[in-house]
Amino acid sequence: MSDIAAIRAAAARMPRQIRRTPLLSSPALDRIAGRRLLVKAESLQVTGSFKARGAWAALSALDPDERAAGVLACSSGNHAQGVAWAAAQYGVTAVIVMPDDAPAAKIDGTRALGAEVITYDRARQDRDALAAQLARDRGLPLIPPFDHPQVIAGQGTVGLELAAQATEEGVAAAEVAVPCGGGGLSAGIALALAADAPHIRLRTVEPAGFDDMARSLAAGAPASNARNTGSVCDAILTPAPGRLTLPVLARLAGPGITVTDAEALAAVAAAFRHLRIVLEPGGAVALAAALSRPEAFDADTLIVLASGGNVDAELFTRAIAVG
Amino acid sequence: MSDIAAIRAAAARMPRQIRRTPLLSSPALDRIAGRRLLVKAESLQVTGSFKARGAWAALSALDPDERAAGVLACSSGNHAQGVAWAAAQYGVTAVIVMPDDAPAAKIDGTRALGAEVITYDRARQDRDALAAQLARDRGLPLIPPFDHPQVIAGQGTVGLELAAQATEEGVAAAEVAVPCGGGGLSAGIALALAADAPHIRLRTVEPAGFDDMARSLAAGAPASNARNTGSVCDAILTPAPGRLTLPVLARLAGPGITVTDAEALAAVAAAFRHLRIVLEPGGAVALAAALSRPEAFDADTLIVLASGGNVDAELFTRAIAVG
Repeated sequence: MSDIAAIRAAAARMPRQIRRTPLLSSPALDRIAGRRLLVKAESLQVTGSFKARGAWAALSALDPDERAAGVLACSSGNHAQGVAWAAAQYGVTAVIVMPDDAPAAKIDGTRALGAEVITYDRARQDRDALAAQLARDRGLPLIPPFDHPQVIAGQGTVGLELAAQATEEGVAAAEVAVPCGGGGLSAGIALALAADAPHIRLRTVEPAGFDDMARSLAAGAPASNARNTGSVCDAILTPAPGRLTLPVLARLAGPGITVTDAEALAAVAAAFRHLRIVLEPGGAVALAAALSRPEAFDADTLIVLASGGNVDAELFTRAIAVG
Repeated sequence: MSDIAAIRAAAARMPRQIRRTPLLSSPALDRIAGRRLLVKAESLQVTGSFKARGAWAALSALDPDERAAGVLACSSGNHAQGVAWAAAQYGVTAVIVMPDDAPAAKIDGTRALGAEVITYDRARQDRDALAAQLARDRGLPLIPPFDHPQVIAGQGTVGLELAAQATEEGVAAAEVAVPCGGGGLSAGIALALAADAPHIRLRTVEPAGFDDMARSLAAGAPASNARNTGSVCDAILTPAPGRLTLPVLARLAGPGITVTDAEALAAVAAAFRHLRIVLEPGGAVALAAALSRPEAFDADTLIVLASGGNVDAELFTRAIAVG
């Protein structure tokens, strides 16, 4: 299991290219949110999302022999780019299985990092069977997107930074809202905060219709989504919580929050205008909760994770035209 | 005159809200530029540009009595927001004279910061006469956009950060490219680098047709532009170099560089895609020079200032559709 020792060990292994991402703010956003709002912009992380942290943590924990022939991952795009980037740092190949309807920016970005991309048809092909066969045929270790102790530990390094930055900003009690797919980022941050900033409580945020984590937390047992497509928040449309992540969040997180696609797109527009950062809709759901669901939070200070910024120009244009 | 002592004093007066902006990078941009490229994102500064630094330096240097009735500034938008923000921190009024064709994002942003905005018609009204009359009638001190020792000292704090960050990144010899209007940011950075990082040489970048600084540096005497409108780079369309800024740059800067509007828009698109930041065209000209004019630079490492990100959705959409 992941614990604070694993997170600190992952932090100690992070290379210089992994940035301490800034906490941004804007008087206009404070007004809309009705409280002090701080935005940790992991969209500014190398590869455009926090996923580079977990990928690096996982690859750097492998024996050199294990990763010598390369690594394998399945991802709609952000984990893909994280693994491709980490593999490139080690000079080994990343083989990435991606749905053929993933955003072009993510497929192109993954290839540009040197990975071999194998696309599949979500409606007709079984991704897990395809990945298992590739792992066998090529003898490659699979790097899972969230349900893996080292991946959770790597994402938890966001939480260590956040605890330190909250102290620097003079934040006492606060909540932190985190975009949630399988729960790797949320679980890692929750573990880090429990150790370093127990006065900051974590809240997961998901798209409406894909709120498996919120329902799992409410029921005290794993729940899954009826669909796996049909939201602009492609980065966080996972079928069900992880076996490792759910118990951590059941212990440490408050009730889950959901937002609509329209609210996510409005948050993309607000981040464009008031913070001058590029977010993808799935990376903007926590900001959306802060701006559209202020009554869901209790604390005077709210920190939101802006988790990714890999978005096609067409969708971004649609978002900022409305906002 | 501004000197390194004035810059260090301005840095010591900066409040917590003025951020140490990050140095960003991307493997894709390194490839396009053909060298190591580091982007200092002052677009992430509070108010969306470096102008908040100079405005704060100027306001904080006034006697409390002088600023009690408020302050006055003329600006197409970024200096406007910087002064409005600094005045709001002191709880005093900012009166800002803005052209009526300034980007809506800048006029709205200035008003949202609590300023009184007075618009004028560039073709029919004399801005300086209007400002002089306002200063007399209301007894307000004028905060000039660049040709003022405290403003230059405030912008110079970017250079102090840049010198420290270059050391942290292990940068030896380098060039730094800076978007240039009247030269306040360039002069401030050049003075700071001369003291703290003399191995980094500054280069100004201007839009084609508005290259008064490049021609002034080449001629060794002030040159002015034939026009004051007609480029998407609204932030940096000043008529001529400052009396204080030109001598500093004549002594410390290399030859000036110019880029086309199309190159500036392509740089906005590259920053969207590869750095996930929002730049306005005038704030992207140094990045444009790095990506479109690599032969203009000598050093293996190039640092570019991304100086502002206050751009209307319509123009941004046009930029990213092309890029």
